[in-house]
Amino acid sequence: MESEQITNPGAYFDSYEDLKVHELMLTDGPRQNAYHNAIVGNRDLFAGKTVLDVGAGTGILSIFCAQAGARKVYAVEASNLARLAREVIKENNFQDVIDVSECRVEDFRLPNEEERVDIIVSEWMGFFLLHEGMLDSVLVARDRFLKPNGLMFPDTATIYLAPCSVPSRFDRWNSVSGVSMQCFGRALRHQGSDKPEVLTVAPEHLLHEGHVVTWLDLKEVTTEELDAFEAKEVLVGQRTGKLQGFCIWFDCTFPVGEQGGRIPNDIVLSTNPVAPETHWKQTVIPLPEGACEDLEQRDPIAFELKMTRNKDTNRRYDLQLTLLDAEKEEHSLPCECQMTKCILMKAHLEKMQVDG
Amino acid sequence: MESEQITNPGAYFDSYEDLKVHELMLTDGPRQNAYHNAIVGNRDLFAGKTVLDVGAGTGILSIFCAQAGARKVYAVEASNLARLAREVIKENNFQDVIDVSECRVEDFRLPNEEERVDIIVSEWMGFFLLHEGMLDSVLVARDRFLKPNGLMFPDTATIYLAPCSVPSRFDRWNSVSGVSMQCFGRALRHQGSDKPEVLTVAPEHLLHEGHVVTWLDLKEVTTEELDAFEAKEVLVGQRTGKLQGFCIWFDCTFPVGEQGGRIPNDIVLSTNPVAPETHWKQTVIPLPEGACEDLEQRDPIAFELKMTRNKDTNRRYDLQLTLLDAEKEEHSLPCECQMTKCILMKAHLEKMQVDG
Repeated sequence: MESEQITNPGAYFDSYEDLKVHELMLTDGPRQNAYHNAIVGNRDLFAGKTVLDVGAGTGILSIFCAQAGARKVYAVEASNLARLAREVIKENNFQDVIDVSECRVEDFRLPNEEERVDIIVSEWMGFFLLHEGMLDSVLVARDRFLKPNGLMFPDTATIYLAPCSVPSRFDRWNSVSGVSMQCFGRALRHQGSDKPEVLTVAPEHLLHEGHVVTWLDLKEVTTEELDAFEAKEVLVGQRTGKLQGFCIWFDCTFPVGEQGGRIPNDIVLSTNPVAPETHWKQTVIPLPEGACEDLEQRDPIAFELKMTRNKDTNRRYDLQLTLLDAEKEEHSLPCECQMTKCILMKAHLEKMQVDG
Repeated sequence: MESEQITNPGAYFDSYEDLKVHELMLTDGPRQNAYHNAIVGNRDLFAGKTVLDVGAGTGILSIFCAQAGARKVYAVEASNLARLAREVIKENNFQDVIDVSECRVEDFRLPNEEERVDIIVSEWMGFFLLHEGMLDSVLVARDRFLKPNGLMFPDTATIYLAPCSVPSRFDRWNSVSGVSMQCFGRALRHQGSDKPEVLTVAPEHLLHEGHVVTWLDLKEVTTEELDAFEAKEVLVGQRTGKLQGFCIWFDCTFPVGEQGGRIPNDIVLSTNPVAPETHWKQTVIPLPEGACEDLEQRDPIAFELKMTRNKDTNRRYDLQLTLLDAEKEEHSLPCECQMTKCILMKAHLEKMQVDG
């Protein structure tokens, strides 16, 4: 029905699923609050400034910027959601402040080719920060369009890893209404190949507070630096429990202006299991069944994590986790673990300090 | 890796999503409890009996039947989950009781062609009971394989409808972190075409306790009787609130044996909004924005619901809801609504009773 399509903004969309994804994001409280606090709570950073919103989606971040006093916002959205964004912007009466461009940011040009923007805002994060995210596009935009002293929202991102228990993939299947379904659990662990999976990890199932895999300064990092990350470490279990996998999460921080009184000093969007749940949840790499073990407090856990860009699909990342022999790996000093050499070394170092 | 595939049951599956659907069902407490209570709690009905499990999935209902003392269980599953079901059955040591057949029940034959089973168990229910369910296949199995006095688990099913508020599709979008996003809400209401959607309706958003659309006796109902259902009614709002849509749900009951002491008298699997949430949630037909209204207590709501089999896809059902003019429709007598004729009629009937 032609007439209906004209009055129905939703009629633009090929995929209802796209809208559901945006519903999920818009109803993600920690995500919304972090961006709202970082932008609307920082009027002094935005007032009179020009902003580029990379992957604007429904336009909500652009509207935050307009509410915070931005003089001009360029909202760039590649999908046909751009048309809905225009309607949302009009609904909020910011059509004179916000210009929506329906194109990839790689194809976007500012009206004045010489112009540079003061601020780039973007919610580009994917699973475990980078997987299916769009940081590459944000960096292209930064290098082309941001003033040398311009601001990035967010401006840092950190990836963490911790050993954990994964009862939803192991213990739960020991008895389902009195039926043993361990082979179902085995199949669930990504068809027995122990692939990473997006899951919610309860804080009590973390066996460690989290090791920093990488910290990114988003003003400086290059696309090439995103090709591969490696972490090789001996961690010390901080809690007893079943070691059944590794949990990966991230957090992002935002620039903070002078309005310290109105907002927390550090604005952090955290997907840590101890923080309120977000739609990113956590990413879990389950261990093969034979590698699971009961972990005593202060047991060492030696591993190597490789996170590499997928060769075929640039926006995807492959995770490879290898358990190592803690006896053979070098421990950081002093090490809190229970291995004899570390206990002796720690005692020695303490003695030296006392003696010193 | 050839060797890995042999030891990994999950390696059979084309679709990881299939496993996730079964995970959802196996962790659906009300579903699991209803079937567990109905089967394992009814040993006197199952001991020594032969059972056919239609659409056995992971095999858990077949195992319940074996636990309840069934002599022989025929588990029929068309997908390659049948192979995982065999492993689950072996894990529970019931391989001598349960025979798994990887085929459609329409192609299934009992080992002895003359044989009939005592009981059919199946979890065939789809959204709003019938949509994408497999009751047709269960009825084929019943007509071919069930003894005349055999039992069906479940044995009745009822579909309900109630007017309701739908804040997640209307009010929520009035302000998202201070941004008006009503046009997003409009798009979400199934791309503006107000199509039915699977949603969770909070009990407090129901404006009526539920009108019975249809009640099915699963021992008797025929496939043809499932082709279309109609309900034309004037309901009386039982609560004030915003009329924004209609909510549909179902419940199923199971036969009850002599072991009354061990289980509740009526075993019901209910997807009523007032019952604990299930993976079926509820199905909501949002109203067009212009048809939404504030409902006073005892306001009449006149509607017609048509539920008809989709012409192209037999297992799908189309819902069509039409709001009618309560002034013009016939009300049931006595009617509790606020319309003058009903108030007068009710007063008259009450007077007649007193006088009589």
